[in-house]
Amino acid sequence: MAAAPAAAPARALAPSSSYSPPSRGVSFCSGTSRPNVRAAAASASAPGWRRWEPAVSVAAGSAQSALGALAVDPKVDTLLDSVKWDSKGLAVAIAQNVDTGAILMQGFANKEALAKTISSKKATFFSRSRSSLWTKGETSMNFINVHDIFLDCDRDSIIYLGKPDGPTCHTGAETCYYTSVYDALQGSKPNEDRQVTTTLYSLEDTISRRQEEATEGSGKPSWTKKLLLDNQLLCSKIREEAGELIQTLLENEDQSRTASEMADLLYHAMVLLRVKDVKMEEVLEVLRKRFSQSGIAEKASRNKS
Amino acid sequence: MAAAPAAAPARALAPSSSYSPPSRGVSFCSGTSRPNVRAAAASASAPGWRRWEPAVSVAAGSAQSALGALAVDPKVDTLLDSVKWDSKGLAVAIAQNVDTGAILMQGFANKEALAKTISSKKATFFSRSRSSLWTKGETSMNFINVHDIFLDCDRDSIIYLGKPDGPTCHTGAETCYYTSVYDALQGSKPNEDRQVTTTLYSLEDTISRRQEEATEGSGKPSWTKKLLLDNQLLCSKIREEAGELIQTLLENEDQSRTASEMADLLYHAMVLLRVKDVKMEEVLEVLRKRFSQSGIAEKASRNKS
Repeated sequence: MAAAPAAAPARALAPSSSYSPPSRGVSFCSGTSRPNVRAAAASASAPGWRRWEPAVSVAAGSAQSALGALAVDPKVDTLLDSVKWDSKGLAVAIAQNVDTGAILMQGFANKEALAKTISSKKATFFSRSRSSLWTKGETSMNFINVHDIFLDCDRDSIIYLGKPDGPTCHTGAETCYYTSVYDALQGSKPNEDRQVTTTLYSLEDTISRRQEEATEGSGKPSWTKKLLLDNQLLCSKIREEAGELIQTLLENEDQSRTASEMADLLYHAMVLLRVKDVKMEEVLEVLRKRFSQSGIAEKASRNKS
Repeated sequence: MAAAPAAAPARALAPSSSYSPPSRGVSFCSGTSRPNVRAAAASASAPGWRRWEPAVSVAAGSAQSALGALAVDPKVDTLLDSVKWDSKGLAVAIAQNVDTGAILMQGFANKEALAKTISSKKATFFSRSRSSLWTKGETSMNFINVHDIFLDCDRDSIIYLGKPDGPTCHTGAETCYYTSVYDALQGSKPNEDRQVTTTLYSLEDTISRRQEEATEGSGKPSWTKKLLLDNQLLCSKIREEAGELIQTLLENEDQSRTASEMADLLYHAMVLLRVKDVKMEEVLEVLRKRFSQSGIAEKASRNKS
């Protein structure tokens, strides 16, 4: 780990030993640090860059034994003891999509649930109503595959950062959060299609709605619809916006111009994604998988496929 | 609201009445629905598309009066009563950055805290240790400006989706989540620079680290560093990747190719953002502000600036 700056050991990455300029596709050359610690072997498939393999594997379903089995590693014990469990032995546990940032669900974890999540890498909670451990997906098979776990500054709140196998909500919705308070105050009923969305996914939703309107012939004219219906126009705009983004660098234009041109490029490229029926989440998954491998290994894997 | 599909009223938007193809910069022509409900006037500045103005404004700081003042609107009363408050009258409240999706902090809300957040649009919690309302930012001035509020399927968990004025954590960190469990198990101490990050921001962090290494002359060669140090190469790659993305549409290549080329374009464009010292969050803020106005109004505002 010679490359790790001393001041920021947790973020340090050993860069790849070489770069491979892409012809089609690109390798991003982020290697993975592999510190030599007894009970933890780093692997690499997620933001956070490191994955930890427990010294003792815990069989899925053996909830009761989870804490006992993991307790052989005093580091895990110490970590579990460092969490500020409340008077009922619980802490809030929030599951977040590692690619999109969507908050999928929120439950509670006790010591055993966190221990099991650490070892199994499946988001596991403590069900207060059933007084038992509950691994999300154990009945639906829609597990949340945990890539990293974070504690907050008070150590009483946990994020399970992971990739869901499918919809998280028991209703079949992507996330459990589809009731907008302001919509409700305007008289709208909860609607599973009205997910909480951050900016990028709100834009993606808008583009999708424009496509539905364009297909149905409903709604008013819009630039998005015009692009959706005219591939040549769309492609020429993407080229143009890429050129304008570049221009902000070459002509030393100000930062607000760069942000604006990047926004234009991103928007037009997302219209193309819609035409091709590709979700931004798929793009981010490509990025995550790509930059968690060394460039050479990644390029080799793509050349094989 | 003629354009609203009956099946999805909460998502429906009245599209802009006209489009304005951009020369430099683009307007996205997403208008805003303004349903005529007595106590709620929709405005438009956030994903979720609607903002709600309370019938009765509540002065900041008047915590005790918040519920009483809002209670004049029976819709707010009904909504507050519909939340499944626990035995202590609390529900989990999670603050999330509307642009990046970052989970900023987690606290608890009681009825008054949610009422005050609805009316003031500043994320407000109930402090269990002080037994009082607490508006994030009331001492630090780093408010979280709430754009929308979501309840989960069980109505016992709340997301405050908003834009922070500054760092959220009392430590000065951007978010309260900077302790990676797997890092801790590898012996790393918590590091406020090691924020929980989803894919796009992990990539942004990696590019930043490559730039630091390039400046210091540390680390190993990487493609990212080569791009960071050679504007002509970077620009030619952005053009090339835009062309390859376009090609997937024009030559009807498969979806995985589109996702891969979009990933390449996004990565290279993000390297340019780093060279220009522009954050992806700034780009997303541009997109949010742009597509929450009608195209014409937005273009007019930009022409003035």
